[in-house]
Amino acid sequence: MSRLFKRLSSTITVKAAPSKAHLHQPLPPSSFPTGYLLTGIHAGVKKKPGVLDLALIVSTSDHPASAAACFTRNAFKAAPVVVSDQILTQNGGRARAVVVNSGCANAVTGRQGLEDAWAMVRETDALLPPSASTAENHTLVMSTGVIGQNLPIEKIVHGIRSQATSARTLASDFPAWERAAQAFMTTDTFPKLRSRVFTINGTEFRMAGMDKGAGMIHPDMGPATTAFPALHATLLGCILTDAAVSPRSLQSALTYAVERSFNSISVDGDMSTNDTILVLANGAAAANGGQVVEIDQETDKEGYEIFKTELTAFAVELAQLVVRDGEGATKFVTVNVKGAPTFEDAHRIASRVSTSALVKTALYGEDANWGRILAATGSVSVPALDPSKVSVTFLPSDNTAALRVLVNGEPEVVDEVRAKEILGLEDFGICIDLGGIGNEEATYWTCDFSYEYVRINGDYRS
Amino acid sequence: MSRLFKRLSSTITVKAAPSKAHLHQPLPPSSFPTGYLLTGIHAGVKKKPGVLDLALIVSTSDHPASAAACFTRNAFKAAPVVVSDQILTQNGGRARAVVVNSGCANAVTGRQGLEDAWAMVRETDALLPPSASTAENHTLVMSTGVIGQNLPIEKIVHGIRSQATSARTLASDFPAWERAAQAFMTTDTFPKLRSRVFTINGTEFRMAGMDKGAGMIHPDMGPATTAFPALHATLLGCILTDAAVSPRSLQSALTYAVERSFNSISVDGDMSTNDTILVLANGAAAANGGQVVEIDQETDKEGYEIFKTELTAFAVELAQLVVRDGEGATKFVTVNVKGAPTFEDAHRIASRVSTSALVKTALYGEDANWGRILAATGSVSVPALDPSKVSVTFLPSDNTAALRVLVNGEPEVVDEVRAKEILGLEDFGICIDLGGIGNEEATYWTCDFSYEYVRINGDYRS
Repeated sequence: MSRLFKRLSSTITVKAAPSKAHLHQPLPPSSFPTGYLLTGIHAGVKKKPGVLDLALIVSTSDHPASAAACFTRNAFKAAPVVVSDQILTQNGGRARAVVVNSGCANAVTGRQGLEDAWAMVRETDALLPPSASTAENHTLVMSTGVIGQNLPIEKIVHGIRSQATSARTLASDFPAWERAAQAFMTTDTFPKLRSRVFTINGTEFRMAGMDKGAGMIHPDMGPATTAFPALHATLLGCILTDAAVSPRSLQSALTYAVERSFNSISVDGDMSTNDTILVLANGAAAANGGQVVEIDQETDKEGYEIFKTELTAFAVELAQLVVRDGEGATKFVTVNVKGAPTFEDAHRIASRVSTSALVKTALYGEDANWGRILAATGSVSVPALDPSKVSVTFLPSDNTAALRVLVNGEPEVVDEVRAKEILGLEDFGICIDLGGIGNEEATYWTCDFSYEYVRINGDYRS
Repeated sequence: MSRLFKRLSSTITVKAAPSKAHLHQPLPPSSFPTGYLLTGIHAGVKKKPGVLDLALIVSTSDHPASAAACFTRNAFKAAPVVVSDQILTQNGGRARAVVVNSGCANAVTGRQGLEDAWAMVRETDALLPPSASTAENHTLVMSTGVIGQNLPIEKIVHGIRSQATSARTLASDFPAWERAAQAFMTTDTFPKLRSRVFTINGTEFRMAGMDKGAGMIHPDMGPATTAFPALHATLLGCILTDAAVSPRSLQSALTYAVERSFNSISVDGDMSTNDTILVLANGAAAANGGQVVEIDQETDKEGYEIFKTELTAFAVELAQLVVRDGEGATKFVTVNVKGAPTFEDAHRIASRVSTSALVKTALYGEDANWGRILAATGSVSVPALDPSKVSVTFLPSDNTAALRVLVNGEPEVVDEVRAKEILGLEDFGICIDLGGIGNEEATYWTCDFSYEYVRINGDYRS
């Protein structure tokens, strides 16, 4: 950098981000849905030896699991996204396996990229025992990492084939799930793995899953060069359950859940080329004397609603881990918008407030800045919005008294001491009440904006 | 801030931003449109003595000038916005004066705020000589500054009334225009004043104008408290011309111009509660033997098109000053999107790329990061977009060779030396060519995202 610009130098004290280690939780054997084998290995996509970069997930049930996905809406879809979308469509929402690599996104890789994604699918298909299914392919594929670079496909193929040899490590215990979650990681500082138990119509089911993504970019992708640019860490998620759900209902439930979880977190930057959330439901815990009855919204509305609610809560739990893993983030803030005409209105406002750079820097500065929240709120077009009905409140995470800063459009005299207490917590909430112009609400989760963000994303050449 | 978080401390060297002083340019007397008197005074809205905070602009032509405005679309419109909008509507697009105060936005001030804005209008009306107009009010009002605080209206009224006494400073020379521009300033580091000469149908006309706004917040509003939160510095602009244009054509031209200027700059944060761009056309240079013929798009399409083009170019010049005044900004970047189906498509993409935090930090880091530009581009919904037709090019401001980083969807091997040269300049361009899926284009101007941004907006409590 030109010395011309180094006239000024100042020391900025960077607040240390809270430790994330406690967010990686061991899970007991009873946590996991039955009928799945998983593993994570080092295939060699990532250069550092021993670092896991290839995950395999296989459903061992006789019949293919129901499968559903939500993909990035970015116009530049990575090869694995195109291929998985195609497979799900041609299979009518069924699959038997998932293969995931990290370290290379296989995005902006043209025809070779598509061929490589198909190769990963076919090699994983070859691991599966024969089934009665007439589908041509049974595996969904995901990738994450640098873009504009082709996969080292021979290494990946070799890695997949190793699972058909004595080197096989596919298993169903916690270490197996943990390896898979580790193989998803790129900029994450801990493997994101959770589980949940739920009951429908008297039967107990389980879901477990992993995701990856970080509020901001982490520089361990190596030195950034223009050939391999770093962009926002891709969001990937894979949820597995032993409930039986029809393909169309699984898709409805997932779409609903993703809208309220993965699409309700403030990640850095725009939707990446690779974002994918998958769910498989293999019915392994639903077999009653051999007869598996799939939950479907038409035939069992109540059962479906329970499943949808559980899936949503679980997706929220996984998505929140991504927010907490924001590099340099010191705050975890829940933004709730209520009293809106529609969920979409509430969601758009929550999104605008949560992603506003001015709001996020104010959070870093522990400033209960209602003005910035107001400007963000008012910049979203909601025709019924009435400024004289809007209230803004800060909510501590310890259930002590809330701090009202704007009430029905009028600013309050703010108790600065109380503001400092609440905003000084790691976790707190912001409630924006539109004053009953409707009954709908939405919740978004976000983190603050710090020097670390600029240093990592802008200053890596100094 | 808790000592618990001060475990880590690092020294970050902050690049000095280039000096802005040269951007304040003296203008010769022949620059200014005829028939206007202006001044700026210290009324006492701002505490520091001598700092100008009240501007008056008066058209001395017999008949009211045509007037047009573009206002913030924020749902929380400040009192001056509501009042000016009402006056323009009831006057059918005519006015004779403008009154502007800085230091207090008169926003989120309820009924008192509206009364105060009307008081400013009436007191300025009282300065004007009688005219044949039957309009009830003749003055438009703008405010900028802290929100949630009422105006010191007595001081403002006193200041306006001073112009009807021997203390009158209204004049038409450069110092008068300069005072008015200074009275607009809040976070600006220099008064933004420009002029332009143009010819329509053989007659020479002039426009001159001022604006205010800075790419980012400047902390000279005093210590931030929650009662008086700082948000993105309001964008205000006032353009004056001695051409004669019908009200409806003046509005069409302004709307067109604002879309391609003030709405095509990356300012920090969301549209504020106060953003306003005004234009007055008093026809003082159009009188041919006493008969003023207003340019109108129906009766003189060619004349209208010239006027619209000139107004747009002038608005661009004023708007660019705002980008250059971004606190801590070290880059001035022109983002051009071409080959789009519609102007709106191109504009949305240019906007997304220009306001992306990831792109802006990459600009600060002088990184020719096509991946982030691509992700931003692809996240805008343009159905006809074809990834295999998109090209991204970096353009130096010195007309030397451009650097192609993505060509028809394929990444180029980037000449890192050349990338460093171009991105090391203060001014450069990014061209995103959608590959002829249409013929429309849009241009946006943005600046980079630096440590200064976080320090100013987030760290003012340390």
